[in-house]
Amino acid sequence: MTASFNKLVSELETLPGIGPKLAVRIAYYIFRSPKETVFNLTQAIIDVKEKVKPCSICFNLTEDDICDICKDQSRDRFLICVVEEPKDVLPIENTHSYNGLYHILMGAIAPLSGIGPKDLTIEPLLKRVREGVKEVIIATDLNVEGETTAIYLSKLLKPLGIKVTRLAQGLPTGSEIEYADEFTLKESIIGRKPI
Amino acid sequence: MTASFNKLVSELETLPGIGPKLAVRIAYYIFRSPKETVFNLTQAIIDVKEKVKPCSICFNLTEDDICDICKDQSRDRFLICVVEEPKDVLPIENTHSYNGLYHILMGAIAPLSGIGPKDLTIEPLLKRVREGVKEVIIATDLNVEGETTAIYLSKLLKPLGIKVTRLAQGLPTGSEIEYADEFTLKESIIGRKPI
Repeated sequence: MTASFNKLVSELETLPGIGPKLAVRIAYYIFRSPKETVFNLTQAIIDVKEKVKPCSICFNLTEDDICDICKDQSRDRFLICVVEEPKDVLPIENTHSYNGLYHILMGAIAPLSGIGPKDLTIEPLLKRVREGVKEVIIATDLNVEGETTAIYLSKLLKPLGIKVTRLAQGLPTGSEIEYADEFTLKESIIGRKPI
Repeated sequence: MTASFNKLVSELETLPGIGPKLAVRIAYYIFRSPKETVFNLTQAIIDVKEKVKPCSICFNLTEDDICDICKDQSRDRFLICVVEEPKDVLPIENTHSYNGLYHILMGAIAPLSGIGPKDLTIEPLLKRVREGVKEVIIATDLNVEGETTAIYLSKLLKPLGIKVTRLAQGLPTGSEIEYADEFTLKESIIGRKPI
């Protein structure tokens, strides 16, 4: 082990999902890779830091001032889907069931991690809603932080006289009742629909 | 998602142990980290590529021509422990039970992955042994590739008139018989010792 090698291992360990053993494996991989491969990696890291920024309307990632979705005039501009992170946009786009705009909160309310409403892009969301929006779909995660954020947002948004909705909860497509957890099953009973 | 962001995700996916989901998580982490943090990471990657090289004697990682262990005159220069990778040296050093030198093969014989004896540092090992060594301890992994390599090496080394040994196989310290796998248990019976 050398100083440079140990330095790389400890830098890699700061990344999410990378423990000490994986950090060592990746450091060896980098050591043994051709220079060009390593250059591509470092260049990609630098490019993300230098070129990518939040969309000035919805805070999604973009390399321009406004992201492609906000630019797209064929989309319903009276409908906003609120998500926690930019990574939540792609799965929703992939459903081909949504044609409105997005608003990325850049996190969720998590008092234990010291993340409060002021750390999120809630003010810009309220501004967008006041400028003319008919419905806000709250698509935060289904965990404690996501639910807390959803309740907080709905209390702010409802007085503005717009429709505020939350993604439906229930059993995932293809799932088996036998293996469903009690919380999901409970939600699916509460939210049952006539067929 | 932007082009730069997607590029970083696909670069990260090429690293060992990083799947598509973790690659996205790390890319977001990089996007959201301070510039200085990201600079430290890229600099650490570049430093490993530029400064770290194999020791000209044992092929361990070093930033000089010869590694610290090979330089250390207090170590037994007639004893060589052969390991597959540089990462195997530290756990052996941590036992404080070994005071010889090392030889790093830079892999193991793995015909299915196209790695043959010529891809390993076997020739330099034979040269070192011919220049005067009393014992070679083969500490390759206990899997198929490691065992194949150990057998291959022992056939080359024994005719040179030196002692060739292999790390003892058996039950790990602290293990319980009930949970021992049949292969380990078999080796521990074959290798049983009087107490």
